[in-house]
Amino acid sequence: MNYVNCNKEDLEKEYAALVAEYEEVKGKGLKLNMARGKPGEDQLNLSRPLLDVINSSTDCITAHGADCRNYGELAGIDECKNFFAEIFDVDPSDVMVGGNSSLNMMFDTIAGFMTKPVVEGCKPWYEVKNRKFLCPAPGYDRHFAITEYFDFDLIPVPMTENGPDMDVVEKLVENDDSIKGIWCVPKYSNPLGITFSDETVKRFAALKPAAKDFRIMWDNAYCVHDVTDTPDELLSLMAECRKTGNVDLPIMFTSTSKITFPGSGVAAMAASDNNMKVIKNRYQYQVISYDKMNMLRHARFFGDLNGVKEHMKLHKAVLKPKFEIVLNALESQLKETGTADWTNPNGGYFVSVDVLEGTAKEVVRLCKEAGVVLTGAGATYPYGKDPKDSNIRIAPSFPPNDELKEAMDVFCICAKLAACAKILNK
Amino acid sequence: MNYVNCNKEDLEKEYAALVAEYEEVKGKGLKLNMARGKPGEDQLNLSRPLLDVINSSTDCITAHGADCRNYGELAGIDECKNFFAEIFDVDPSDVMVGGNSSLNMMFDTIAGFMTKPVVEGCKPWYEVKNRKFLCPAPGYDRHFAITEYFDFDLIPVPMTENGPDMDVVEKLVENDDSIKGIWCVPKYSNPLGITFSDETVKRFAALKPAAKDFRIMWDNAYCVHDVTDTPDELLSLMAECRKTGNVDLPIMFTSTSKITFPGSGVAAMAASDNNMKVIKNRYQYQVISYDKMNMLRHARFFGDLNGVKEHMKLHKAVLKPKFEIVLNALESQLKETGTADWTNPNGGYFVSVDVLEGTAKEVVRLCKEAGVVLTGAGATYPYGKDPKDSNIRIAPSFPPNDELKEAMDVFCICAKLAACAKILNK
Repeated sequence: MNYVNCNKEDLEKEYAALVAEYEEVKGKGLKLNMARGKPGEDQLNLSRPLLDVINSSTDCITAHGADCRNYGELAGIDECKNFFAEIFDVDPSDVMVGGNSSLNMMFDTIAGFMTKPVVEGCKPWYEVKNRKFLCPAPGYDRHFAITEYFDFDLIPVPMTENGPDMDVVEKLVENDDSIKGIWCVPKYSNPLGITFSDETVKRFAALKPAAKDFRIMWDNAYCVHDVTDTPDELLSLMAECRKTGNVDLPIMFTSTSKITFPGSGVAAMAASDNNMKVIKNRYQYQVISYDKMNMLRHARFFGDLNGVKEHMKLHKAVLKPKFEIVLNALESQLKETGTADWTNPNGGYFVSVDVLEGTAKEVVRLCKEAGVVLTGAGATYPYGKDPKDSNIRIAPSFPPNDELKEAMDVFCICAKLAACAKILNK
Repeated sequence: MNYVNCNKEDLEKEYAALVAEYEEVKGKGLKLNMARGKPGEDQLNLSRPLLDVINSSTDCITAHGADCRNYGELAGIDECKNFFAEIFDVDPSDVMVGGNSSLNMMFDTIAGFMTKPVVEGCKPWYEVKNRKFLCPAPGYDRHFAITEYFDFDLIPVPMTENGPDMDVVEKLVENDDSIKGIWCVPKYSNPLGITFSDETVKRFAALKPAAKDFRIMWDNAYCVHDVTDTPDELLSLMAECRKTGNVDLPIMFTSTSKITFPGSGVAAMAASDNNMKVIKNRYQYQVISYDKMNMLRHARFFGDLNGVKEHMKLHKAVLKPKFEIVLNALESQLKETGTADWTNPNGGYFVSVDVLEGTAKEVVRLCKEAGVVLTGAGATYPYGKDPKDSNIRIAPSFPPNDELKEAMDVFCICAKLAACAKILNK
């Protein structure tokens, strides 16, 4: 039944039924988790063969003669640089392969610019007292948190189905030199799952920021992470920037965290010569070299980018049914109520649900009481504040399918219960 | 012959002979390297079995149930925390196990305090315009470089056979609140190979710094790295600090870089609750978790600290002859000249040689021309400036023994040639 158009008496009946249903599931003592984009057991098992690539009788020498067991190769081994360069659409000399975490490389980048300017003559950001960062929202809480930690004012930018609202971005960036950057997940964005349109990418490449040291933090975390047979295509930002002459704008990141093992994958970044010069200058003081054994393990496991893409088909086979479970539950249980909207992404790790305005927090609370942990309501907004209290990020990957089904049933009951209560002013 | 007491005629003869000898070795076209403390091939092979510990059929679950393949456990896995806690003499809850590089953890620590104070109410170090850091010298160039990168004034402190000259340290630290810390390698120090005496450790624990946010950067890089059968013992700084109530003073670091593989080992740090609270607060924004697979690999390979110590006996068997080659060459070729002194360490990675004052740069240059690369003269001093131009750090670990012998012969010829030339005013 549609909650918005129905009469009060019917809705009261529905509410009473939902309360009873909710009490019943609460009694089950469930312990389910749809909070974070963690790969599930089946996905982790896909990369088990990676662990056999290097053993005690393997040679550990790169194609260019470096011994991966010893110090050296600050920017990473060539085998890895090459396949990341293909992803980033840059020359391998502009790639830096790091440790296990692209988040750490993003943090290092912002931390670096806090104390040394990325553009000579600009102030280190620590000295820009009213420094600001654009946060397309809903977005990734850990991105926002880095700039919050460094005391930036977080400026929300609305997300559209084509990416950040570029009218807003252009107006802000081109008129305020205290705005130093913007966070982007351009493909299968977290949490919406949308891919920036060609026009959005072109407008990013054509930005004329008031701040010379404005940078686009381009986190291509889900670059090869399709979950349907109709994958999205993302235009190359770097290629567009070469056309506009704006090659210093983007700093790009990715990792194999959701390709092999989260936390023991390989992360990488790339940017223009100018940017990489500043970034590598800091890294040379920070570390002697990152874990080349793990780089070699990955390089030999995949061979090249095609190897990565083949491997991602295995992930898709695991993830596709999980996304279908989530979407089927939403479709069959929430659609008719007219109180919720959601995304239907071709890839990534999330389904983003907008429940009835003013009920997201309540839905998360109800779920928690019934044993289903969700990402905190509001987490996808700067400072954790969703102005409409409506957005909830669902992460289908971690629970086994039967648990996911059960968790989604609980979620739908809670969303309906909260919506009824809100409309009925309970 | 003794160059200092001999007559000019004899020295001229010696000089002519040395020039001839030098020209001869230069003709050989050698390519040898004694520059950095890199383990050699034989040492790397000792840890090959580490690479079999985890393979595709291994379970990857910690004793406490964490799946090392997935995200989680920001401070590292308990198995690793436990053995590092024993090294640091702290509770495992005060240990943070990081990535592959303790240098990176030191860099992160200084970088962190640059923008957020370690003690509430103190200024972030970025705002302390005349900030200073004490650099016991000769010392580790990469330590000094971190604080130079962050624009500290580097204040040299003389090293004695018992560690940094504590009269100087106390006077400086207790009277100048712009001095924010000191770099220490307390056991088998880089490059002297000396171990801080009990009195030195006690005086560190009893320091009364003018700056509330003064910290001792205690890099215990060579904690189990003996090369003779008469190893040094280092008093526990944390135990002494518990007695004086100064538990917030030290921040301690170590790694397995020179136990297993440099660059793909496991690094760790430890400090008081107060310090770790600030440090972990930053790490929670910086990274989701470090490489737990590599932690598990190490924890299972060693079992416990005893396992580490047993493994280090294998390293000793490789390194002891190398140190003997260096010391024998110095003893047999340089001693009688009366122009050089050197250390005779029980562990670590270096022999520190003081050649005739004013000739270190020339010795390094001569060696380089003859195909033997040494650490740059002066590198062991802040800003690379050795006031006496005398100290040269010799790293015996990397070259095979026959090459090391050859390199040391070249070194001795160059040291003698430079000394003769200097005395003769050539």
